[in-house]
Amino acid sequence: MPQQFRIGVLGRGTVGGAFARLLDEHADRVQRVTGLRPELSGVLSRSTGSFDEILAGSDLIVELIGGIEPARSYVLEAMRAGRHVVTANKLLLSEHGDELFAAAREAGVQLRFEGAVAGVVPVIRVLQESLAGARIDRVHGIVNGTTNFILSEMARLGITFAEALAEAQRLGYAEADPSDDVDGRDAAAKMAIIARLAFDTPVRLDQVRYEGIRQITPDDMEYARELRLGLKLIGTAERIQIHPGDPSVAATSAATDTPEGLSVRVHPAFLYPGHPLASINGPFNAVTVESPEITEVTMSGPGAGGPQTATAVLGDVVSAMIPPASAPMATAELPLVTDVVSAFYLHLEVADEPGVLATVARVLAGHDVSVKSVVQKGLSHQARLVMVVHQVLESRFLAAMAEIAELPVLRSPPRAIRVIEEEFG
Amino acid sequence: MPQQFRIGVLGRGTVGGAFARLLDEHADRVQRVTGLRPELSGVLSRSTGSFDEILAGSDLIVELIGGIEPARSYVLEAMRAGRHVVTANKLLLSEHGDELFAAAREAGVQLRFEGAVAGVVPVIRVLQESLAGARIDRVHGIVNGTTNFILSEMARLGITFAEALAEAQRLGYAEADPSDDVDGRDAAAKMAIIARLAFDTPVRLDQVRYEGIRQITPDDMEYARELRLGLKLIGTAERIQIHPGDPSVAATSAATDTPEGLSVRVHPAFLYPGHPLASINGPFNAVTVESPEITEVTMSGPGAGGPQTATAVLGDVVSAMIPPASAPMATAELPLVTDVVSAFYLHLEVADEPGVLATVARVLAGHDVSVKSVVQKGLSHQARLVMVVHQVLESRFLAAMAEIAELPVLRSPPRAIRVIEEEFG
Repeated sequence: MPQQFRIGVLGRGTVGGAFARLLDEHADRVQRVTGLRPELSGVLSRSTGSFDEILAGSDLIVELIGGIEPARSYVLEAMRAGRHVVTANKLLLSEHGDELFAAAREAGVQLRFEGAVAGVVPVIRVLQESLAGARIDRVHGIVNGTTNFILSEMARLGITFAEALAEAQRLGYAEADPSDDVDGRDAAAKMAIIARLAFDTPVRLDQVRYEGIRQITPDDMEYARELRLGLKLIGTAERIQIHPGDPSVAATSAATDTPEGLSVRVHPAFLYPGHPLASINGPFNAVTVESPEITEVTMSGPGAGGPQTATAVLGDVVSAMIPPASAPMATAELPLVTDVVSAFYLHLEVADEPGVLATVARVLAGHDVSVKSVVQKGLSHQARLVMVVHQVLESRFLAAMAEIAELPVLRSPPRAIRVIEEEFG
Repeated sequence: MPQQFRIGVLGRGTVGGAFARLLDEHADRVQRVTGLRPELSGVLSRSTGSFDEILAGSDLIVELIGGIEPARSYVLEAMRAGRHVVTANKLLLSEHGDELFAAAREAGVQLRFEGAVAGVVPVIRVLQESLAGARIDRVHGIVNGTTNFILSEMARLGITFAEALAEAQRLGYAEADPSDDVDGRDAAAKMAIIARLAFDTPVRLDQVRYEGIRQITPDDMEYARELRLGLKLIGTAERIQIHPGDPSVAATSAATDTPEGLSVRVHPAFLYPGHPLASINGPFNAVTVESPEITEVTMSGPGAGGPQTATAVLGDVVSAMIPPASAPMATAELPLVTDVVSAFYLHLEVADEPGVLATVARVLAGHDVSVKSVVQKGLSHQARLVMVVHQVLESRFLAAMAEIAELPVLRSPPRAIRVIEEEFG
């Protein structure tokens, strides 16, 4: 019997349910990676379960209750009892970060919270580990999927904020009371967490300036299109030169003799077309980290939904389970395959005479290769024939191409390039 | 005196030099994060230093020699002597991964290699940790910056492969002998490493099918533009249904009764316009990981240059130094600032009468706000005036806007949205 690793879950919402399913599905894989067998030791909901019993029977506590209390007391108590904690609670971290991190350090336990910021987009891990040796100058983030969906729909369809919000609510991307999302408060809490990690500076939610998107009009979107700019709700945390006489500085820090400061804010902003966040559309999150050593790194993915957040939580749980020394163990889970399906672009130089297209098409059909689009161009005595064919097993396409190469109408060897399409497999 | 953590470096090339500089610059920050003082204990070059002495005096070995030998022997010896190893050697990992990972497990030490795959783009960390609890279906990657630069220039300027290669060599993005890059071998080695981690399956470089980009013509790029497709050198590692009778499967695995297999390959491919990798241009790397739980996550950043790889190596070193229990300690490094500079879009509904633009422009100038572009449209009795202004301290812009709001020609309150521009600060 492998050694067990007992996980107690606080909260029985969407994320909690998704986490329990994921843990069950991936228990074998987690055991292979960590050497320990993960096991759900208990779930606390409003009406069932005892926190004390779950704590006593767990090696790690996953907090998915949300809000400040009782989440704060449970997390503090768990860490003081020597348990690692994984949480997705952005409000708790952005309002009580100092207290929580101090408790984790004091107890010598891990406090992980990737799921609190951008779902499975690995912002926290990258800031804490990958870039631990880099000086960060700025973080820009689209950290609220609801507002990014609303703005994308406004841009795409020319509809009003109210119409796009109703659509977001219908699709489950916005809550019945959408205020926290559309007024920027959710994004502000996430930026407070990001700013703390990126700049080693304690930042609380009440120190982040934020604006939402209720005031954005179809007219703004029209001008954005004219000016070729993307319009997004952007969170910014950046190191800046302090403007002499900024009254806000003296109030927040005694270190008024340093010329550098930190600005953390959330507001709608236009982005120039080449900005890495300009092309992020729909209910997605994305974060760009800028540093002189690396120029910039961008990470993007779906915003926080139940399965995404649950995946981020499980990633944190696995990290907490991994003993310090470990190396991946390949288990030859899958045999290697070489013949795969693909769509192809096929480029032919042929004699410019009647019936060539029909001849080529007949060869392709003979190998079950189906044509999606054709462009033909005459070039004096010869013609150029470019086709895109539907997905087909490569060996079949290559057999067809070999037969085409032998056709007397061919003027040079056929050339092919694979096409990656939106839907595949 | 804080406890020291001694780092021995093998190799004195570009990355080695950049790593030594970074370590020196960021020693204080690393000490704050890890509690240990990092110190360079020795550097082995072809002509100076003794491996045995450096090994004896180090807690961790950074291998930056490249190639198979003597890198392989040194890395194995270091791990067997109980030292953690960080390497950026993709060839070594893609040809001797099994041996190296087994040695790390046996010795109970860490073997880290983020810098081997995509520079500071955190592919390895995300596959090993963030997504440890997700079932991965496919990884698509642009993992060679040289070829992505060449293809981007061919698309942008309509030039030939040879011309774009010469430009890449002139700018230092391609080596004098570019074969490993342009023939796809470098990308294949990286995909072998990625595939091993994503699919728990041992993959060697010689098992990856690869093609390069020498054969791509300006003509292909023209058709790509007509079909609105991006043309990239794409590495793919994906879980697929095995085609019955694929002769390659029986040869590589005994598990022929499973219906799933793994395909790992590198080749040029057209991407549909919305694909997350279609907009990655220039000497960049990017990787998209697809999984049913999370749909997809994309990470992008500069390809492996000296400073980028050195930053990735230092990130790995920091991870190896971090004791299992740790929580970030905010040190109030930066005071919080609220008044920052920004460009603005300013939207005004004004009376449609002469002199309005001049009046507004005068108010802006009085606050040192400089206009970049103006669009004016008449709407029967009133006009809409939309301006973008250059970067200015927000307090100044807001003061100008407050003054504009009081102008008798205004028909509704002025509205402003920030604009994020390409160059800032």
